[in-house]
Amino acid sequence: MATRSAAVHRVAMPDPGDGSGLAALLDAGALDARAIVCVMGKTPGNGLTNDHTREFATRTVAAVLAPRLGIGVDDVRARVMLLFSGGTEGILAPHLLVFSRGAAAPEAAPGPALAIGLARSRALRPNELGRAAQLDATADAVRAALADTGLADPAAVAWVQVKCPIPPPGALHGDAVAGIKKRSRAASALGVAVALGDVARGAIETDGEPIVRPDLGTRRACVTAAIDSARVDVMVLANAPEWRGDFQVGSTALADMLDAPAVAGLLRRLGLGATPQLTPAERTRLVGAILKGDPPADGRLRDAASVMLDDSDIHAIRHYRAALGGMLGALTGDSHVYLSAGAEHQAPTGGAVLALIARRH
Amino acid sequence: MATRSAAVHRVAMPDPGDGSGLAALLDAGALDARAIVCVMGKTPGNGLTNDHTREFATRTVAAVLAPRLGIGVDDVRARVMLLFSGGTEGILAPHLLVFSRGAAAPEAAPGPALAIGLARSRALRPNELGRAAQLDATADAVRAALADTGLADPAAVAWVQVKCPIPPPGALHGDAVAGIKKRSRAASALGVAVALGDVARGAIETDGEPIVRPDLGTRRACVTAAIDSARVDVMVLANAPEWRGDFQVGSTALADMLDAPAVAGLLRRLGLGATPQLTPAERTRLVGAILKGDPPADGRLRDAASVMLDDSDIHAIRHYRAALGGMLGALTGDSHVYLSAGAEHQAPTGGAVLALIARRH
Amino acid sequence: MATRSAAVHRVAMPDPGDGSGLAALLDAGALDARAIVCVMGKTPGNGLTNDHTREFATRTVAAVLAPRLGIGVDDVRARVMLLFSGGTEGILAPHLLVFSRGAAAPEAAPGPALAIGLARSRALRPNELGRAAQLDATADAVRAALADTGLADPAAVAWVQVKCPIPPPGALHGDAVAGIKKRSRAASALGVAVALGDVARGAIETDGEPIVRPDLGTRRACVTAAIDSARVDVMVLANAPEWRGDFQVGSTALADMLDAPAVAGLLRRLGLGATPQLTPAERTRLVGAILKGDPPADGRLRDAASVMLDDSDIHAIRHYRAALGGMLGALTGDSHVYLSAGAEHQAPTGGAVLALIARRH
Amino acid sequence: MATRSAAVHRVAMPDPGDGSGLAALLDAGALDARAIVCVMGKTPGNGLTNDHTREFATRTVAAVLAPRLGIGVDDVRARVMLLFSGGTEGILAPHLLVFSRGAAAPEAAPGPALAIGLARSRALRPNELGRAAQLDATADAVRAALADTGLADPAAVAWVQVKCPIPPPGALHGDAVAGIKKRSRAASALGVAVALGDVARGAIETDGEPIVRPDLGTRRACVTAAIDSARVDVMVLANAPEWRGDFQVGSTALADMLDAPAVAGLLRRLGLGATPQLTPAERTRLVGAILKGDPPADGRLRDAASVMLDDSDIHAIRHYRAALGGMLGALTGDSHVYLSAGAEHQAPTGGAVLALIARRH
Repeated sequence: MATRSAAVHRVAMPDPGDGSGLAALLDAGALDARAIVCVMGKTPGNGLTNDHTREFATRTVAAVLAPRLGIGVDDVRARVMLLFSGGTEGILAPHLLVFSRGAAAPEAAPGPALAIGLARSRALRPNELGRAAQLDATADAVRAALADTGLADPAAVAWVQVKCPIPPPGALHGDAVAGIKKRSRAASALGVAVALGDVARGAIETDGEPIVRPDLGTRRACVTAAIDSARVDVMVLANAPEWRGDFQVGSTALADMLDAPAVAGLLRRLGLGATPQLTPAERTRLVGAILKGDPPADGRLRDAASVMLDDSDIHAIRHYRAALGGMLGALTGDSHVYLSAGAEHQAPTGGAVLALIARRH
Repeated sequence: MATRSAAVHRVAMPDPGDGSGLAALLDAGALDARAIVCVMGKTPGNGLTNDHTREFATRTVAAVLAPRLGIGVDDVRARVMLLFSGGTEGILAPHLLVFSRGAAAPEAAPGPALAIGLARSRALRPNELGRAAQLDATADAVRAALADTGLADPAAVAWVQVKCPIPPPGALHGDAVAGIKKRSRAASALGVAVALGDVARGAIETDGEPIVRPDLGTRRACVTAAIDSARVDVMVLANAPEWRGDFQVGSTALADMLDAPAVAGLLRRLGLGATPQLTPAERTRLVGAILKGDPPADGRLRDAASVMLDDSDIHAIRHYRAALGGMLGALTGDSHVYLSAGAEHQAPTGGAVLALIARRH
Repeated sequence: MATRSAAVHRVAMPDPGDGSGLAALLDAGALDARAIVCVMGKTPGNGLTNDHTREFATRTVAAVLAPRLGIGVDDVRARVMLLFSGGTEGILAPHLLVFSRGAAAPEAAPGPALAIGLARSRALRPNELGRAAQLDATADAVRAALADTGLADPAAVAWVQVKCPIPPPGALHGDAVAGIKKRSRAASALGVAVALGDVARGAIETDGEPIVRPDLGTRRACVTAAIDSARVDVMVLANAPEWRGDFQVGSTALADMLDAPAVAGLLRRLGLGATPQLTPAERTRLVGAILKGDPPADGRLRDAASVMLDDSDIHAIRHYRAALGGMLGALTGDSHVYLSAGAEHQAPTGGAVLALIARRH
Repeated sequence: MATRSAAVHRVAMPDPGDGSGLAALLDAGALDARAIVCVMGKTPGNGLTNDHTREFATRTVAAVLAPRLGIGVDDVRARVMLLFSGGTEGILAPHLLVFSRGAAAPEAAPGPALAIGLARSRALRPNELGRAAQLDATADAVRAALADTGLADPAAVAWVQVKCPIPPPGALHGDAVAGIKKRSRAASALGVAVALGDVARGAIETDGEPIVRPDLGTRRACVTAAIDSARVDVMVLANAPEWRGDFQVGSTALADMLDAPAVAGLLRRLGLGATPQLTPAERTRLVGAILKGDPPADGRLRDAASVMLDDSDIHAIRHYRAALGGMLGALTGDSHVYLSAGAEHQAPTGGAVLALIARRH
């Protein structure tokens, strides 16, 4: 196999119906549409049940890509992993992260550099959602995606991005929607944990539903539930010696909503200072931030009461995203974060996991 | 005049109907109710028009203080400056800041130390709100409060906390409520600016309404509008050589919502590191944080679009408080901030002003 | 026992901190405070977890009543059933319904007329909430309240108003709050159903939690959960031949959210036309309206989809109250309804129950 | 000109991305896509600034129509008047109203029957929005649309549906968005009033902005602001002797939010009883309902306070739509209403205007 190279581009997309930013990137020749393997997007909806901006943005992106790929709009999803999360509360900015890969140019910087591996599970049946079948299908897909990078050791994986299925809108209502989302994410997160060796398969009871034990899980995954596919999509990110290019990835776990020291530590590992904040020059090197976490379930943060969970006007997750965006922004000086809640088996209780993608220099 | 000393105590108050935290502080002998000059509180409401938690908490605090002061519940407001702001979005924690002063104990640490000066204007008539009469009455009250500290030079003032009047609930509706709040805060903020020498009185047109020019103003004030008094209440905070005690105050301006370096600079001036965050030991020295600011009016933060101003489900100010609470918390590790929007003539456009009160060691 | 008489007065209370309307009613001599047995109130909060207007209004009413009863403010709750529900969406108006009773004046109109019976259970332990112990304690209280009216036959009961306990704020968070409210209301509603003979005690499994079967229940109760008592408070309303006075009560069930014919039928039974709406003169005879119901759980209303249950910005119950208030108002021309959701075992699925209290002429 | 006939079809559209209902109608042969002149839709967004469901649904409908019209998706808007309003609070159901017209079939019922006239203004420049130029351009378009029906007398017009331009999203923020929407609607509403003879052109000052005088206006229009065109689109509805077919239209004004008698009167004029509610058989004859109105600006409804205007968690307009939907539904038994706020110069203060389209038998 020829030496490969991966890249990540960030594009502003303030309006879910406006794909002109992505079109401009492609038309400028900075990126060949055929190299794109995944587009993650943060849209300005509420990020909850009735957030139509996710599907709207998905179609907008598909409409930009289809003619450039020479395929129909409805066929784009099957070729490119499209993964949208709503909710740009506080300082958070709606944007796209465009992942691409291909044969490395001769002049590409030698590795280790960002590697991207991809895989997709079989279609799951509705009664498999949230159960052992989903867990095992996800684990298989993670193993295939790892193999796709050419890496052998799961320890080398920095991050696994997963899109898992839930039933279409209208099929369920109210609390039932939240319930199936939670169970689907949980099953796929445990699947990642098993494939990465973070949890032994035998530790998980699977006759019925996957167990929900916050003490089990991985700290290298972000699982998002989506309505538009019955398959589990997996993208593995790692820094691989055999890959070349300008990008690197790192990840860390945050112990609670104010764990700025963990963030600063990760920035340092990527060669970025935060004393307390990245300089404008350093900021241009930070391309992507992906955070997964949840508000503390006991309504306490350190020595104080939080009222997020008891606010019936604003969903706790919206409080959470706004606060975490500010917390991260204090250190990065930046407002582009793919910040998503629903961290079952992914983050410590009340904490979070964070991946950063940065230019190497 | 005997040497004086001032103190600030922080008390958790998760529920606006629960005064037991304040009662416990007083009953433990840590503080004599008769020394209290001001209670500022952050309550868990929405901080907007129909936030009844402010008045509810005011009455709860008054009910705790009244028997300990030997006066009626309805007389507490006339004796103690009670100043509540709603909105504890994100990590922000509902709490009270209790300001007190009295003759310094012989063993009190020598100054310079926190000094507190107080004054109250005459009652304003409804047609004076937002106009020159309010501006000048506020300026007079600030001068009187400065004199009350024993300091002569306005340059020594770190912070001026102001409570300005607005009409009672039900008198106005919808946009009209926001309008009169804005004009009342603007007039009093300009009054502070004039008294502190930050703006020349002659630069302000006053035949009609005070002008709204973001380029004029002070950076050392926090003005909050309240329904329960027709007077302007003023509390001046400074570090004075003649005062003794354990507390100090500092203030700074933030250029935008992510100006963490300004916060870190202020922490350093108070002897507190933030690399990137205060240690637990340092955190115990941080007693109070007061922030005043507004979302950027053009919907832009640095190089990105923000959707705060266009979110019709969550008021922009609630986005703002959640994000700023996270930003500050990244550096302080703490979630207690009296964080209030409506910064006319107080903060730079899109920025904020911040006061911190800390133990000296 | 002397012949008795009951009355219901309605008082506007737009602000939960303003008791002047109630004070004016009492000071005008229209009502003796010592005759008051229950005050129900609709407050302008969100009616959900963090609605502090309920407790605020409770204290405001207690502060009005205490001096007039010659007791302490904290003792009012033990003497008068205080029952507040938040949420005045749409046209709904915040108000109080003041229930009183006493010896009938000689000139009082002969019965049948409104009768009020009262009873209160023992204090329930936390682990009894939502279980058989609460069911049976409620049933006993209903029987006692019925006996208190002097009536023997449960068939004569038009309505049973119940206040049932839930843990205090802060004890639980998020979904857990909704869960315990639901179970507490369910247990007390089944208790009413058993006492009224609408459900056989033997039909209910009680080893663990009361069963939740929408097919079992009563159609003559409104159960509201409250934080401020560990007891179950019961008020029975009926039209009794032995009681005298100007008031009557009636109740009905609505099959769905648009069952205006059922409402019109009840109005007619009370001597009030609705063709389609009460005349202004008829409207003055309508004193109180109490409605209990829930949005349809399947998200369907007749032949159409409703999105109430999927709206993550506005709680379904707030949609519901606004819509039902409009529906009732179309027929009554009035906006005062004590409209409360959480109708477990009280209303048909997707439907509601309604009590109206009207002057007899 | 051959005798013409018009029709209105209602299609459920619960999800703004799902055009299958419309496609099914067309594919069943019930309606020829080439006969469609207007599609109005109610979408399940918040109906406010950041409601992306309107544009999303517009594109979905365009994608259904384009292949059936043999034109490009982007060309559909120029051929068919597409007019979407967000907000299906309470019982309101998301749906489409599809207006079509063509040569009358020989067997079509003789008139008078529903007539539809169409016209479109020139493109307005941004600085013409809300000013005399927009007023006059709208008036010209209304006159042209009236002529298009073949009717001569403006008195015969039952309803004028208008789509007026506002700047695209992102061009303005916060209060400025509401301001320009209001002024654009006002100018076009006055244009309708002038064209219909309801207001004399000379009574309106037009040097600067159109005056805002609630006492001037028409009671036969619904004006909606939209981002996707710089032109004013006009559709006139009337019952014309020369038109044939199964449909009729009527309109009325409501004096306040509870004016059910006005609604009942209009239903009777259309041959539909409401005692108090349409029977299921009558309900099938009611095809479309369009309501335009606003909450009362003084926060009062009849003798009671409303808190809609002071609710900072739910926009007053969302309260309004939920309540009015319930009020109308009480009489019609139906939940399909194109219910839109922003009734400048269209409805009486605190009231509304209503058009109903019904089958003639």
